[in-house]
Amino acid sequence: MYRKTISPSVLNRLPLYLNYLRSLPAEGPEYISATALAGELGLGEVQVRKDLAEVCSQGRPKVGYPVTDLQSSIEEFLGYNNVNDAVIVGAGKLGMALLEYGGFRSYGLNVVAAFDADPTKLGTAPGGKSIVSVDRFENLCRRMQIKIGIITVPADAAQKVCDMMISAGIKAVWNFAPTHLKVPDGILVQNENMAASLARLSTHLAEQFGKK
Amino acid sequence: MYRKTISPSVLNRLPLYLNYLRSLPAEGPEYISATALAGELGLGEVQVRKDLAEVCSQGRPKVGYPVTDLQSSIEEFLGYNNVNDAVIVGAGKLGMALLEYGGFRSYGLNVVAAFDADPTKLGTAPGGKSIVSVDRFENLCRRMQIKIGIITVPADAAQKVCDMMISAGIKAVWNFAPTHLKVPDGILVQNENMAASLARLSTHLAEQFGKK
Repeated sequence: MYRKTISPSVLNRLPLYLNYLRSLPAEGPEYISATALAGELGLGEVQVRKDLAEVCSQGRPKVGYPVTDLQSSIEEFLGYNNVNDAVIVGAGKLGMALLEYGGFRSYGLNVVAAFDADPTKLGTAPGGKSIVSVDRFENLCRRMQIKIGIITVPADAAQKVCDMMISAGIKAVWNFAPTHLKVPDGILVQNENMAASLARLSTHLAEQFGKK
Repeated sequence: MYRKTISPSVLNRLPLYLNYLRSLPAEGPEYISATALAGELGLGEVQVRKDLAEVCSQGRPKVGYPVTDLQSSIEEFLGYNNVNDAVIVGAGKLGMALLEYGGFRSYGLNVVAAFDADPTKLGTAPGGKSIVSVDRFENLCRRMQIKIGIITVPADAAQKVCDMMISAGIKAVWNFAPTHLKVPDGILVQNENMAASLARLSTHLAEQFGKK
């Protein structure tokens, strides 16, 4: 089924709406308006109104959106209803944190295993998931038809891991290594750009305190 | 010293340039052109040219930028030369991964300690840094004049932690909890929006495979 393309800024805001809706108590109000949501999240009302209209057709003037319909529309729009299997390469601290984190499932991600080249790291993580030798990577990914790969190796190993993922059939790479990855057309790289976040924190402090 | 404001999209690209420049061998070429950098990173040449001109005045037609000058200009622009002390609240898996990660220093961030409310988590992390009781948070932050707080607690505890940080004098919050935080004017919240990343991965696969 064809789905319409969505702008990156809308994609940044929809999860905020969703998190807020998910946090509402079950016995809470049945409807929520764009105005109320904008106020709660400190966002512009016009923007929120446009975003909601794009994903959900159940809005009614002066009443708002039925909370449950709006929540499931956003979940469907974001693809959180399709649970996709994913694998991690790099069983360091960050890789292990992601492997054991239970919360990805409600965002449509099921991490099935982690891989590492270091034989001392192999075995079973406290949560019960396996850390497998990287020698078995391609075989396991092809057999399980894994389409998402998560890279948590150091920057200088990331391109090699990325190439290995693509030859194993992976179509979307979530990259935590602070480096640029080259990929063929049709492969998505989603960078977790923590360096840019750090720059924002630092420039904010410099603006506030005149420190440079 | 006053510094000019910089657009978020430039702030997203500058760390990519910097990572690439840092990855060049010491015996590599002395100059690099915007064209070469754009080609390496798969970005538009016009955009790269504009970005570089904004941060570094050393560019020469047909020759490019001296690699070392360009690198230090970007570092200064991003504030990576000011090392800022930071604290973490939430010594779970992610918090511990961030506490022990050694790489933040080259981005101007020095994580001094983590805090947790659970007495069984207190002590010294393998890297030598301390996990301290949250009761001592305000006192320690005020004494060390900490301005950056990192939130790695579950979503439902994040606002309370954020309020505590602000009353302890923190001015910039790096939020890993999947929730929206309300803060007064003058406080920056930088959200690590992993939920939006996951939506991007999922929508990419849906577009590729027609799965919805």
